[in-house]
Amino acid sequence: MRSWKDECGVFGIWGHPDSSRLTYLGLYAMQHRGQESAGIVSLENGKHIHHKGLGLVGDVFKDSDLKRLAGEVSIGHVRYSTTGQNLLTNAQPLTADLFNGPVAVAHNGNIVNNQILRNELKQAGSIFQGTNDTEIILHLLSKHRSNDLIEAVKDSVQRLEGAFSLVILSHNKLVAIRDPHGFRPLVLGQKLTDDGRKSWVVASETCAFDLIGADYIREIQPGEIFWVDEQGEHSQIFAQSAKTSHCVFEHIYFSRPDSLVFGLSVYESRKRLGAELAKETAVDADIVIPVPDSGVPAAMGYAQQSGIPFELGIIRNHYVGRTFIQPQQNIRDFGVKIKLNPQSAVLKGKKVIVIDDSLVRGTTSRNLVNMIRQAGAKEVHLRIASPPTVGPCYYGVDTPQKSQLIAANQSIEKIKEHVGSDTLAYLSIEGLFKAMQSGQNKYCAACFDGQYPTRLYDEKNI
Amino acid sequence: MRSWKDECGVFGIWGHPDSSRLTYLGLYAMQHRGQESAGIVSLENGKHIHHKGLGLVGDVFKDSDLKRLAGEVSIGHVRYSTTGQNLLTNAQPLTADLFNGPVAVAHNGNIVNNQILRNELKQAGSIFQGTNDTEIILHLLSKHRSNDLIEAVKDSVQRLEGAFSLVILSHNKLVAIRDPHGFRPLVLGQKLTDDGRKSWVVASETCAFDLIGADYIREIQPGEIFWVDEQGEHSQIFAQSAKTSHCVFEHIYFSRPDSLVFGLSVYESRKRLGAELAKETAVDADIVIPVPDSGVPAAMGYAQQSGIPFELGIIRNHYVGRTFIQPQQNIRDFGVKIKLNPQSAVLKGKKVIVIDDSLVRGTTSRNLVNMIRQAGAKEVHLRIASPPTVGPCYYGVDTPQKSQLIAANQSIEKIKEHVGSDTLAYLSIEGLFKAMQSGQNKYCAACFDGQYPTRLYDEKNI
Amino acid sequence: MRSWKDECGVFGIWGHPDSSRLTYLGLYAMQHRGQESAGIVSLENGKHIHHKGLGLVGDVFKDSDLKRLAGEVSIGHVRYSTTGQNLLTNAQPLTADLFNGPVAVAHNGNIVNNQILRNELKQAGSIFQGTNDTEIILHLLSKHRSNDLIEAVKDSVQRLEGAFSLVILSHNKLVAIRDPHGFRPLVLGQKLTDDGRKSWVVASETCAFDLIGADYIREIQPGEIFWVDEQGEHSQIFAQSAKTSHCVFEHIYFSRPDSLVFGLSVYESRKRLGAELAKETAVDADIVIPVPDSGVPAAMGYAQQSGIPFELGIIRNHYVGRTFIQPQQNIRDFGVKIKLNPQSAVLKGKKVIVIDDSLVRGTTSRNLVNMIRQAGAKEVHLRIASPPTVGPCYYGVDTPQKSQLIAANQSIEKIKEHVGSDTLAYLSIEGLFKAMQSGQNKYCAACFDGQYPTRLYDEKNI
Amino acid sequence: MRSWKDECGVFGIWGHPDSSRLTYLGLYAMQHRGQESAGIVSLENGKHIHHKGLGLVGDVFKDSDLKRLAGEVSIGHVRYSTTGQNLLTNAQPLTADLFNGPVAVAHNGNIVNNQILRNELKQAGSIFQGTNDTEIILHLLSKHRSNDLIEAVKDSVQRLEGAFSLVILSHNKLVAIRDPHGFRPLVLGQKLTDDGRKSWVVASETCAFDLIGADYIREIQPGEIFWVDEQGEHSQIFAQSAKTSHCVFEHIYFSRPDSLVFGLSVYESRKRLGAELAKETAVDADIVIPVPDSGVPAAMGYAQQSGIPFELGIIRNHYVGRTFIQPQQNIRDFGVKIKLNPQSAVLKGKKVIVIDDSLVRGTTSRNLVNMIRQAGAKEVHLRIASPPTVGPCYYGVDTPQKSQLIAANQSIEKIKEHVGSDTLAYLSIEGLFKAMQSGQNKYCAACFDGQYPTRLYDEKNI
Repeated sequence: MRSWKDECGVFGIWGHPDSSRLTYLGLYAMQHRGQESAGIVSLENGKHIHHKGLGLVGDVFKDSDLKRLAGEVSIGHVRYSTTGQNLLTNAQPLTADLFNGPVAVAHNGNIVNNQILRNELKQAGSIFQGTNDTEIILHLLSKHRSNDLIEAVKDSVQRLEGAFSLVILSHNKLVAIRDPHGFRPLVLGQKLTDDGRKSWVVASETCAFDLIGADYIREIQPGEIFWVDEQGEHSQIFAQSAKTSHCVFEHIYFSRPDSLVFGLSVYESRKRLGAELAKETAVDADIVIPVPDSGVPAAMGYAQQSGIPFELGIIRNHYVGRTFIQPQQNIRDFGVKIKLNPQSAVLKGKKVIVIDDSLVRGTTSRNLVNMIRQAGAKEVHLRIASPPTVGPCYYGVDTPQKSQLIAANQSIEKIKEHVGSDTLAYLSIEGLFKAMQSGQNKYCAACFDGQYPTRLYDEKNI
Repeated sequence: MRSWKDECGVFGIWGHPDSSRLTYLGLYAMQHRGQESAGIVSLENGKHIHHKGLGLVGDVFKDSDLKRLAGEVSIGHVRYSTTGQNLLTNAQPLTADLFNGPVAVAHNGNIVNNQILRNELKQAGSIFQGTNDTEIILHLLSKHRSNDLIEAVKDSVQRLEGAFSLVILSHNKLVAIRDPHGFRPLVLGQKLTDDGRKSWVVASETCAFDLIGADYIREIQPGEIFWVDEQGEHSQIFAQSAKTSHCVFEHIYFSRPDSLVFGLSVYESRKRLGAELAKETAVDADIVIPVPDSGVPAAMGYAQQSGIPFELGIIRNHYVGRTFIQPQQNIRDFGVKIKLNPQSAVLKGKKVIVIDDSLVRGTTSRNLVNMIRQAGAKEVHLRIASPPTVGPCYYGVDTPQKSQLIAANQSIEKIKEHVGSDTLAYLSIEGLFKAMQSGQNKYCAACFDGQYPTRLYDEKNI
Repeated sequence: MRSWKDECGVFGIWGHPDSSRLTYLGLYAMQHRGQESAGIVSLENGKHIHHKGLGLVGDVFKDSDLKRLAGEVSIGHVRYSTTGQNLLTNAQPLTADLFNGPVAVAHNGNIVNNQILRNELKQAGSIFQGTNDTEIILHLLSKHRSNDLIEAVKDSVQRLEGAFSLVILSHNKLVAIRDPHGFRPLVLGQKLTDDGRKSWVVASETCAFDLIGADYIREIQPGEIFWVDEQGEHSQIFAQSAKTSHCVFEHIYFSRPDSLVFGLSVYESRKRLGAELAKETAVDADIVIPVPDSGVPAAMGYAQQSGIPFELGIIRNHYVGRTFIQPQQNIRDFGVKIKLNPQSAVLKGKKVIVIDDSLVRGTTSRNLVNMIRQAGAKEVHLRIASPPTVGPCYYGVDTPQKSQLIAANQSIEKIKEHVGSDTLAYLSIEGLFKAMQSGQNKYCAACFDGQYPTRLYDEKNI
Repeated sequence: MRSWKDECGVFGIWGHPDSSRLTYLGLYAMQHRGQESAGIVSLENGKHIHHKGLGLVGDVFKDSDLKRLAGEVSIGHVRYSTTGQNLLTNAQPLTADLFNGPVAVAHNGNIVNNQILRNELKQAGSIFQGTNDTEIILHLLSKHRSNDLIEAVKDSVQRLEGAFSLVILSHNKLVAIRDPHGFRPLVLGQKLTDDGRKSWVVASETCAFDLIGADYIREIQPGEIFWVDEQGEHSQIFAQSAKTSHCVFEHIYFSRPDSLVFGLSVYESRKRLGAELAKETAVDADIVIPVPDSGVPAAMGYAQQSGIPFELGIIRNHYVGRTFIQPQQNIRDFGVKIKLNPQSAVLKGKKVIVIDDSLVRGTTSRNLVNMIRQAGAKEVHLRIASPPTVGPCYYGVDTPQKSQLIAANQSIEKIKEHVGSDTLAYLSIEGLFKAMQSGQNKYCAACFDGQYPTRLYDEKNI
């Protein structure tokens, strides 16, 4: 169980009479990518209709809202901010009224030269209403003198460094565009209408297609701009890149296990991460248990590889909402216990291997190890299905600052002492790439190896 | 009872530890000026804190919101839009992050060259997030290259034609400014803190001062910019005007009767309007009754002048909220009846003079006259305490288009037939100015006499 | 302005396809009689459907609730408790499933032998879910062995002492019944359906009839039981009484001015109370002002009688909701000021007569007198349009205990000093009865004269 | 995945200063037992304080509610009704004011002679406010003439046939009582206060103890009444039983896997059910997959026993709330798909064994089998980790009527055709009892074998 927050999810559909409802469902399927706000903009008769709100998709939209969001084209967004406070003004899609019509932008990723561009735009008289970096994209578009949206988008994103998977809606076009590194996922699909017309769909993850019954076609390529308008679909590569930098963390933790991300099944990747971990960090034990839910596939992979039985030694309470009231008197490890309950029927007297997907600050692991011991485990061997997290992410993952990353500041031996396990071992960088079936030419693993694929600007974060 | 919607109210305070709470109360007192949205921005340590929402002041702000709105300086706004739909993005104060810091603007009024400026700004690459004309002011400020806010504000408002009473908050200044015509009210006051310091207060109406226990000092003058900063208070006249154009409708209907507006008591003005009306439109009758609540003082003035007894022949249900559920079967005049109930104990067999503040479309009057007859009145003489409304307002009053103004399209005789009264009479323009104790050199009465004090731009409205 | 809380309102309708909507509107019109909870029970195919909630009628019922409340018969209730905390379990109509079917009861009044009956019923094994005295009526009905509801009701209410105006709904009957004293009002009306059928309506006040377009027929008599079933309407007198004890306070404060109560117009009664007050308590003054809204008709009567001009010296803010956030620093008389604002434009330099409907604790009057002086009044003469309140009410008015009734414990001279007025005078008992056009043979004025028309039981209250 | 609804959970604590917060947390941990309503009653100075509401525990209680629920003793309830509609009047704990003080009852189970007792009580004049059978217990208590609560409780429950695990709170006692059959679980624990005092805790499941840090002591025995008062704890056996009838379905589906129920780990039971199923219903396959979440342990047991790999072939979306908006155009199997997504990366080309905990109507299984095939599975072998469900439950499990139980009306071959799997097999009754490590002398398996341990009364249900 990680303490990092999820990032964002984007969705777009062109040419379906049920467009806003399908967008709602696509966002529903990608709720794990952001629970802070949700929004949909639809296009009808060249005009935008929008509805945004703070909270979960199921709470933000009422049936009457979806009825109002008429039209055969819609885009949507779920958000956990990586920049900007959680204000409604930061909720996406961001919308604006430009000289050549309305435009709406839904963004997943993080722009590293955000502050430089923001200052430059402010000096030129632009005003910023919110604090998120997506607003920069709107301003760049608005400064562009062309009436050709595609030219404007291509020119504008040339200014951006960092991660962006964007879905853009104008008065007559749906655009999907992905940065040349391909940090964040973006996939293309198709769905038939009841009367047999073909509609186009884009989403952050394929699980959105599964729910709405759309077919997965391919990824939007790194450096590709894809758009649909009344003339049909179009695609251009606006920037070539010798290598890509897909975020390896999408596979380790972010994405839903039932999604295909960067062409691979996330579930299978996690199992391979667990299997590699077993090869590298074998230890004598009675059972292998996951920290649910994210650690489950890795623990299954570890168990299959090691031959040690897989057990659900920790049960998760799925009814825990976003808030709950604390007891007034002290209950040990309460914050973790409200979600996770180690069961002594499974653990008592056992040598236990505990598999977690990653280890960031170490606080939760410490509480968990203690609870597992309280439940009667004889030995606790903590195994992390990814390498030590030594650097923050600048491309859209909400990691804490370097000073709070325990592996950036402590030896593994010290971390072991801190969390109180009998042994502690991480997956190696090599093991990570082996499990991911490719290396630095395909993936960004900067949080583990420090190899940031772009320049970095904001000194305060480093 | 009028069918026009109220306009906006603005408030600002500098130098009081309870600033956001006092702003909340000031807005509470001015709730009649706008019920669609409310917002407060406070200033603490050079940073802005804001909270806005749709609905009534008492619903938008919780105690925790006011706690979060820390700092000794705050501005606030209640709104009924005259331009722009009721979207949260249009709720004020509007806030922006400019090159030289944060700025927040609260606006009462309407800019007549809105569309021209908006197009010009869009062509220059500005983007508009909402639809209200206050956003233009932010863009003009952001385009100004000076670091001197006061210069920037003065230069920016030179571009505006129309009505504006503005309260502006930057990172270190509270500014109050009023257009040279002085269309909308804006008053200055002072309040002592518990420890004896002097804080400055500005508001649309003096009733806001009464509630918070502040003293009324004077009006912000037409063409004046007044500001407070750490160095103290300052004032300049940025534009001279030979005559002013105070909105006469503030006295007829908008403002609270207990406010001083343009230096006169609204309550006393309304009584004089009624008295003048009595002089001009005498008729034999048993009782004079008001359409509550706005018609009450005029009816009192009419009764005193004419010697005919004043009675509350129509009772208003003050528990009627903004929505109620309709019956399914037909109830005659239901829409009016839910709020107003003519009582036959008073009306039966009587010759009745009914006083309303104004008559716009005629629909409500028609229903009311019918109900009064049903309650047993022998004769119904409708008297309007203002002249026939022949033109829309472009300065911040939400009047219907000319085609819907019955007096712009029908003779008084025809209107009488439409509403079904025995007689119908309006106050004359001369009577209006007599009651207001001044004429066209002081007041704008364009909705009655067609003498618009500025150029008009938006043809579609005319 | 009084500090007493309102009591309850009841409503019932038989034979209208829109029955629950009309009940909703009837309750809406009687919202002044209770704002704590609202409820409706409808009858369809011999089954009850119910919906209750805490809060205002307009908030408790959504359109879907009224749709669900199907059937041509409904009863409803708005409540401010005179006994029992504000729990949802106390919200009315109370419903129960008896041996011979469902029954629902809506009650206005207060049972004085409540505690005796309650203890007796508990000893016999009855259980009480809420704390209000209406539950006793359900238990008495359930103990009755007859299958004849009318017999059961008549026998049950014989056990009750005190005030009750009841509307009862069974699986096939609508019953309206009023105690022999006739403490609380209850009126009978008729309304035609769109297809010309005649439906029967009962309500606490005629203002409910006005809104739904029903015709007032007559009062339900003291000691009368009236019911409607498939056979038609029926009436019996179950108890004769030489005199009645109509609550005089309904006219002084409770009822809406546009209602007929006990056969008299409330508005006219209040004007006569003011006129009698003027005859008895004349004083030299410049203006007469009411404490709005309840004091307005009395002030009008006072002014007409005395010849001193009537003015609205205090303006009420009708946007004040049930809650508002207090300032943190001290604002003098804040609690009153949030609702009422004395205007110095009217009061400055004047000798002022202030008319209030009654004076209970004296706290509000004290604040008001102070505020009127602050607004510049030269003299303040407080006049109360009812006699000194010397005893609590046991029949359904939520008066404070005797120890908190200032007139029960202090001389008028002392009260005058406490509130700070120049003079203070009340209406005499004789004046009260004169204004009400009848005396103790018709009215209960126990709170003023101590003549309680029933035995009293609960010692703690006396 | 089953379509049956959960039943209820009860909780009680005596002697802890944080009693209502701990009750809240205990209910939070048992949320899976009922999501329709939640309630807490606390005891302070001999008086009851209560708060109930519709919805999830985390939504029903605000911090201020728990503050109000003062006192060192509390009881609580979460509910899904097995009898009675979901009305707030049915929310528990039910409370009543009896002749000897307040009493509150929280009930898990179902009374089979409910209707007989209800009619009898109504004939004797009792009134029923809700429709649930717990109200009967209150009435029986109220009819008892003893001042000794324990005698009254023992005498009252003698009248009840069926399942009851009750927690009762009076003005000075906390009582826990369980029917002689022991249908529903009820466990006893202890927790220390911060200052070292010993508090007593009772709950439906041990997972509630785990969260609040209480120690599990033992089960409340079938036929035991246990109570705590100022004199300490007490226990009596009020009814002896040669055999018990613990509900086997608690282990198959209801209880949380991390609870000890009837002395056994639920998780281990489920694994053994899966293992027995593997022994009985072997089939050649590539993978074993569970229907999440309830089928997971059984699938693990099946996989371990059979040696066929365990995979997560279906991913559950845990963000699915209680409501979501449907698409307007057709999406195949949408109702199941919103929660469960079979992933083709795992299933494609595979022979798949699908493990579900039970099969009731067959609708969900049919959709799932279809979705698994669509995801590319070559063969689908459905295995049910319990016997065919042939009879409804009368002891607190919300099963559909017999006519809707597919196995009560169809052969297994026909069911297989209906759901569309290649093969279908259930666990045998013998296998069930083997996995549960005991037989009919310990467990009720009436829904599978028709051996109801009590008389049955309500003919309409049979």
